[in-house]
Amino acid sequence: MANWRPQLESIRRIVIVGPGLLGGSVGLGLRRIGHPCHIVGVSRSRQTLDVALQRRCIDEASQDLAASLADAQLVILASPLSAFKPLLEVIGRHDHEGTIVTDVGSTKSSVIASARKALSASQMSRFVGSHPMAGSEQQGPAAATDTLLVGKPCVVTPEPDADPAVVECIEAFWRALGMNVLRMTPAEHDRKSAVISHLPHLASVLLVEVAARLGGMEIASTGFRDTTRLASSNPTIRRDILEHNREAILAAVDAMKGELETVRSRLAANDDAALMELLEHAKRFRDDWTKGRTDAI
Amino acid sequence: MANWRPQLESIRRIVIVGPGLLGGSVGLGLRRIGHPCHIVGVSRSRQTLDVALQRRCIDEASQDLAASLADAQLVILASPLSAFKPLLEVIGRHDHEGTIVTDVGSTKSSVIASARKALSASQMSRFVGSHPMAGSEQQGPAAATDTLLVGKPCVVTPEPDADPAVVECIEAFWRALGMNVLRMTPAEHDRKSAVISHLPHLASVLLVEVAARLGGMEIASTGFRDTTRLASSNPTIRRDILEHNREAILAAVDAMKGELETVRSRLAANDDAALMELLEHAKRFRDDWTKGRTDAI
Repeated sequence: MANWRPQLESIRRIVIVGPGLLGGSVGLGLRRIGHPCHIVGVSRSRQTLDVALQRRCIDEASQDLAASLADAQLVILASPLSAFKPLLEVIGRHDHEGTIVTDVGSTKSSVIASARKALSASQMSRFVGSHPMAGSEQQGPAAATDTLLVGKPCVVTPEPDADPAVVECIEAFWRALGMNVLRMTPAEHDRKSAVISHLPHLASVLLVEVAARLGGMEIASTGFRDTTRLASSNPTIRRDILEHNREAILAAVDAMKGELETVRSRLAANDDAALMELLEHAKRFRDDWTKGRTDAI
Repeated sequence: MANWRPQLESIRRIVIVGPGLLGGSVGLGLRRIGHPCHIVGVSRSRQTLDVALQRRCIDEASQDLAASLADAQLVILASPLSAFKPLLEVIGRHDHEGTIVTDVGSTKSSVIASARKALSASQMSRFVGSHPMAGSEQQGPAAATDTLLVGKPCVVTPEPDADPAVVECIEAFWRALGMNVLRMTPAEHDRKSAVISHLPHLASVLLVEVAARLGGMEIASTGFRDTTRLASSNPTIRRDILEHNREAILAAVDAMKGELETVRSRLAANDDAALMELLEHAKRFRDDWTKGRTDAI
């Protein structure tokens, strides 16, 4: 391992910590593209491991991360964010020369801060944060698919001290799984994720809460179903995101509050021309986005 | 026509005013269930009529509502709400004994107020407002399908002076097309629609506006796509809804503002336990809804 060169084709043993929806889909995706490798799934939950094994997301199951690290070229952290700190500490205590570490966490600044505390300088040169922007309101390896990642954006947030060869290797890894890789700083990722992912999730939750309070569910239809789909996400994973990206989410919530107040005053003032302008702008902006995309979104 | 008894099997000539997404889907649905009838599509737009004819949403095209009314057992208003008033006035001036009139408008109090102004007492006994809760962000007869209505809720809002046989006939009509019929007052419909349809649409628009302002679209994925789908709806139709259901929508917007302020203060106070409670409640409420449904939503 000492002289292993970080390149995609040399990755033969992969540890997926938390082979759930996302981690499991990485495993299935690797099979789909025919990448020859042995995948070890690590979880505290025997049930997660059993389902992941049975669905062939992983080749081998382990409840012992430390033991699984030996000889792995790549470790992927795919557990909820709240589990990252202790997992990174285990990795920090069991350095294996050459092992690359990445993650699929929904926030990046906090993950990198934890990594910097737990890992050695040598390990940090082999750590690159990732966020594959793929998901579902479902959870666990039972919901994993071999195409979940295909055509979706994947943000990588390399730190200045990361080995460029490692960064390229990680980017090649996500590209091989069919993802569109974008490089940005952790702060930029977190700010943008708050806007296009974390705020939409909160809006979904609040729409459900308003309906729970005011009533009307018996006539709710596909529009309500789609706008509130994210409200059925795993609450633990979502609470972790709120906790780990609080400042950026607060800024996005404040922007939403401002927009809501604008629309309220236009409604109250019977200003239908201004409302029309708003509706036309939003439609044009969104339609341009969907038309412009060449990916699977 | 004078002695026509209002029952589904006697409806042989149907006028669909505005054979767009919804009106066109009514026509295609009637073919799917094999209801023997002649469907006249009425529109000012020659293009709408041509597409509706070509897609077999209608059998005959007309740009003259008054002329089309003769011998029709059923007239369905399916144009944008802003066109209802003049259309109802045409119907009011050309009464045909026995013709039933319904509509598919997204608001009901304002439609019934317009109907009451334009129609005679005899005509009002044959008018029943409907709202099939089916739609799409797409528009026009090109997007119509023969199953758009299947398994979706359809609200009917009969007035006290409606002929009970007519009300039953209209309900049988929507049921024959596969819909789950619910009867309520116009005010109840409008209040509930504001919560489960009009507010979710506004939230979609505002999420797009926040993203347009703060950036992040290059990493937007399926979550953003689904929560903002309604923002791609036809702006004219949506502006009409805002105008015709203003009070109920203002109340829903205020409820949303309250929820947003609650979540903001919990975020700012690091009250992750309260946030978790919120996320769990919303998930449970929505999951109960989706699990409890036997329809297509």
